[in-house]
Amino acid sequence: MQAITFDGKQPKFVTNRPHPEPTSGEVVIRPTRLGICSTDLEICRGYMGFTGVLGHEFVGVVESVAPKAGREVRQWVGKRVVGTINCTCGRCDMCRKGLKEHCRDRTVLGIAGRDGCFAEQFVLPARNLLEVPEHVDDDQAVFTEPLAAAYQIVRQLTVEGRPYITVLGDGRLGLLCAQVLSQLNATVRCLGKHPEKLQLCEKWGVKHRLVSEVGLRQDQDIVVDCTASATGLPMAMQMVRPRGTIVLKTTVAPQVDGKQIDLSPLVINEVNVVGSRCGPFPDALAALSAQQIDVVSLISRRMRLSDGADALRTARRSDVVKVLLEV
Amino acid sequence: MQAITFDGKQPKFVTNRPHPEPTSGEVVIRPTRLGICSTDLEICRGYMGFTGVLGHEFVGVVESVAPKAGREVRQWVGKRVVGTINCTCGRCDMCRKGLKEHCRDRTVLGIAGRDGCFAEQFVLPARNLLEVPEHVDDDQAVFTEPLAAAYQIVRQLTVEGRPYITVLGDGRLGLLCAQVLSQLNATVRCLGKHPEKLQLCEKWGVKHRLVSEVGLRQDQDIVVDCTASATGLPMAMQMVRPRGTIVLKTTVAPQVDGKQIDLSPLVINEVNVVGSRCGPFPDALAALSAQQIDVVSLISRRMRLSDGADALRTARRSDVVKVLLEV
Repeated sequence: MQAITFDGKQPKFVTNRPHPEPTSGEVVIRPTRLGICSTDLEICRGYMGFTGVLGHEFVGVVESVAPKAGREVRQWVGKRVVGTINCTCGRCDMCRKGLKEHCRDRTVLGIAGRDGCFAEQFVLPARNLLEVPEHVDDDQAVFTEPLAAAYQIVRQLTVEGRPYITVLGDGRLGLLCAQVLSQLNATVRCLGKHPEKLQLCEKWGVKHRLVSEVGLRQDQDIVVDCTASATGLPMAMQMVRPRGTIVLKTTVAPQVDGKQIDLSPLVINEVNVVGSRCGPFPDALAALSAQQIDVVSLISRRMRLSDGADALRTARRSDVVKVLLEV
Repeated sequence: MQAITFDGKQPKFVTNRPHPEPTSGEVVIRPTRLGICSTDLEICRGYMGFTGVLGHEFVGVVESVAPKAGREVRQWVGKRVVGTINCTCGRCDMCRKGLKEHCRDRTVLGIAGRDGCFAEQFVLPARNLLEVPEHVDDDQAVFTEPLAAAYQIVRQLTVEGRPYITVLGDGRLGLLCAQVLSQLNATVRCLGKHPEKLQLCEKWGVKHRLVSEVGLRQDQDIVVDCTASATGLPMAMQMVRPRGTIVLKTTVAPQVDGKQIDLSPLVINEVNVVGSRCGPFPDALAALSAQQIDVVSLISRRMRLSDGADALRTARRSDVVKVLLEV
């Protein structure tokens, strides 16, 4: 079958990838839309040491299950679904504590130990699936995973007394986070380097500024780093107030020749840094269903699975927000 | 007068430092015991860009005040005191919020914008002073500042359900933190590299292990980094459980040729990092007064102010815990 794979050196489009075989708890999904995420781009720079089929953002239709699958798995056939990306053991200390996203033995779709969704077909455990409401179309549903990641911040923060929140980064995730956080009782601004991307905030009524135009005054209660860049944290440390909170939302592969970051402001200003990863799919689907978040405006380009490495290169361009792939 | 100063290049003992002049709110203190802290050693490596008289840990006697000082200042003359090290403006947004340790215009004794206490005399605002209870002797009282820093952790953490706490580092601050945290409803262990320092934990009933002997299993609820080393945070990230907390207790000047730290485990494991600096002097004095914390066992060497740079070199030695200076 067709797929976009990463072999440890470069991403490529292949046509001879064997079709995946589901185990008894898994379903085979044929994706209809795929989203390219910064994590995919970081993986192509060596992050996580992953090799295999790339991709973890999808919406698709369940095509089949293993012959011996039970009814609770078979019931999914034919349904339009999105799915959480952490595949868990259910037995380790984290799973037993209810922290299954942190399962000690997890595999992660297209990120760790499991082929991703940039293919004609892929497999995922049935218990990871959520059915997409009929009036949420594919273009919206494919944003469920990154939107859930934005909602995770809301679950992790305690928002008191109308805080000042800065979202650093005007990319895919930054623009989602800015919209989500604007629903809170908070004064939110989005900072970025790209006037044409920030312009999207106008339409949502979210304050925005070029990062070069704001003072580094350590006066923000909360700074959310969505820069996907090693410069994000140092900048966040210059913006957050003493005893404030920095939310680290993006992972960056450390650069070999990178400069060591001075973390002493964290200690001096007693800053709280919160790492934030995957989030609640039900919250994201509910927001999409209620039309609370505009994701369609983020779509910059529609390409095809067969565009392969070219699609990933396009997603890296600074004037591009979201690249969707059609299969 | 005699003093130990740092000129931006190296620490030195001088005898021609002018006596300090108090402003109307300040008192002149003659220290009787001084403590050398890792921050002093980092300053001598360029941390904070400080120059002037070093030192911020002291106990001493108030000798005099400015001629025009009010009664609330004059009342301190003759008293044996310790003092908080942040000298604040009382007017900025942080001071008004009650976060005076984070005053925007603060000076910090021997650390930022203000000569320190490694001298025959130094000045400090009267409102920074606390009287030392009679039965707390000088050898104990000089530990008030670092002990308060250890108690700050207790104020910042929410301790629930008997957590597993690892204190990383068997130096001055690590051994204080291990004792303080052992008072909580928690399972505490202190990890270090020096059997002879860890041996002190035996006497306090605190579990201890050589860091080389423990597994890096991401199973600790809380890890407190007291290593004063750039290796502390990466190690803490390998020890803390997903959704756990790392307390950064020591500041490290970034090394020019240092390796970039991979911070992605913070995001992947959704770790909470809490910077922690100065703490509550009253809590520390109360603990010393109640004999709850053994500080005297930490004293490795007694030297004199006139030992100057030699005293700082001694404090850097791996087999030395605390160096006290007598004036």
